[in-house]
Amino acid sequence: MKVLLNGKIIDRKDAKVDIEDRGYQFGDGIYEAIRVYQGQLFTFQEHMQRLYRSAEKIDLTIPYTQEMFKAWFTELIAKNQLETGMIYFQVSRGVQAPRNHIYQESLTPAIMATTMAAPRDLSEHRKGIKTITVPDTRWLHCDIKSLNLLGNLMATNQAAKAGAKEAIFYRSPDTVTECSHSNVSIIKEGVLITHPANEYILNGITRQVILSLAKQLSIPFEERPFTLAELKAADEVFISSISAEVTAVGQVDDVTIGNGKIGPVSEKILTAFTNEIEKNCGITLRSTAK
Amino acid sequence: MKVLLNGKIIDRKDAKVDIEDRGYQFGDGIYEAIRVYQGQLFTFQEHMQRLYRSAEKIDLTIPYTQEMFKAWFTELIAKNQLETGMIYFQVSRGVQAPRNHIYQESLTPAIMATTMAAPRDLSEHRKGIKTITVPDTRWLHCDIKSLNLLGNLMATNQAAKAGAKEAIFYRSPDTVTECSHSNVSIIKEGVLITHPANEYILNGITRQVILSLAKQLSIPFEERPFTLAELKAADEVFISSISAEVTAVGQVDDVTIGNGKIGPVSEKILTAFTNEIEKNCGITLRSTAK
Repeated sequence: MKVLLNGKIIDRKDAKVDIEDRGYQFGDGIYEAIRVYQGQLFTFQEHMQRLYRSAEKIDLTIPYTQEMFKAWFTELIAKNQLETGMIYFQVSRGVQAPRNHIYQESLTPAIMATTMAAPRDLSEHRKGIKTITVPDTRWLHCDIKSLNLLGNLMATNQAAKAGAKEAIFYRSPDTVTECSHSNVSIIKEGVLITHPANEYILNGITRQVILSLAKQLSIPFEERPFTLAELKAADEVFISSISAEVTAVGQVDDVTIGNGKIGPVSEKILTAFTNEIEKNCGITLRSTAK
Repeated sequence: MKVLLNGKIIDRKDAKVDIEDRGYQFGDGIYEAIRVYQGQLFTFQEHMQRLYRSAEKIDLTIPYTQEMFKAWFTELIAKNQLETGMIYFQVSRGVQAPRNHIYQESLTPAIMATTMAAPRDLSEHRKGIKTITVPDTRWLHCDIKSLNLLGNLMATNQAAKAGAKEAIFYRSPDTVTECSHSNVSIIKEGVLITHPANEYILNGITRQVILSLAKQLSIPFEERPFTLAELKAADEVFISSISAEVTAVGQVDDVTIGNGKIGPVSEKILTAFTNEIEKNCGITLRSTAK
């Protein structure tokens, strides 16, 4: 297994970072994860654009171009013989000693990337997952895809301990925001409703693809906060992320959504999403992945 | 220079951590910093107790006792010939691959500690620092001394760019909380006022020592949120932290506090704090540090 570290493809076991890398001491960095289907990067540009935007928001300048990242990722996919899975990569502000909240302008950002196999399994998307709702106590810059993820992972683990696959965050009973590692949408009377892309949510690339597909499919949608009551009374609920794609929510707390499985509108979007993968990646998905 | 890494005192240059240490990918860990005066640890127990409490709040079990930490720190201080300065140390949840929000129960936490020289300079405490006020947009678990510090360091850097030494956070104009890396207190008509120790602030050990000294000195104090208007109309303002101890604030945004230098109540507390250092550390401070 190979990984990318500071511009070099090296053996996984040799991949170490300094103890005073600011990513390690402050979570001072940002990240992305890109889906790979049959060796091809999906929505690569969109992820890169978001990476540079996240960097800008924390006043970090990435000294590498999109083309350099693409070359590194392509090499990594080839060397690790990654078929279907994902690439995780992060950029931290770099090593600074002694530790100081104030960052030096002269630091060289540290970058690293790993790959992980993850076959596409549509039965997981359709069967209807169990979720819980939890108060959203995170900071007010959720639009930044930063390494400060403790709030997210505490919620994920709370869900896991309750036998659920996701935690759905709400700022107040009136405002459902997103999930601990995905976005959430509801369908009510044929209308798709999802929280607007502001500082309360991470504007998922999958979320953006879905809204674009909804437009093409003439599925009406509203980007507005919805309430916990609307969530639980929805006809359909789904989460979205690069790994979840469109994954049906069958249960929210103790409430069953619809018949507990994927609903007709979500299924329609999932089918369009499958077509979009083929188009964007320039591939024909093997039948097992459809 | 030596550092502590996972129970071993090693050369600084050899101190590396794995790229999939959860501290590096999620900020999944906690930390402390302890002041060292003339080779002696100040309020060691209080810091350790807070470390274990922070760990508990993120469901992390530290498999090392307070005595083990003390032995490591004592060795580190001796080997680095640290006279007056501080020890920084952190505990992350450990290495887990592949990356997953859900943490395994079986992980071995990673610990590391570094030392830094920092002489005691009372002129810095007395001269009156410049500060700015900034909205507090951090998460609602500021009582946990976690590695998720991006909100704090963004504020510190905003202050530095404005030529200020600290950023004072407010949740609303009615509620001043704390600073980006210290607590803040005001004095009005002889009464010390500081935000109560709840989820909106990190309950500084220095803050706690100061409140205990205020009691001994019969300085009345109130633990309650105060407003931005109260802050700017205060007779005295000071920040507190292990490095700031009691440091006078001379300016908040464009408003000069008192005569811009340390005020009489703050000076009284600073004197008592100096005595407390000598008592707690069992030392007589050299005259240059008084």
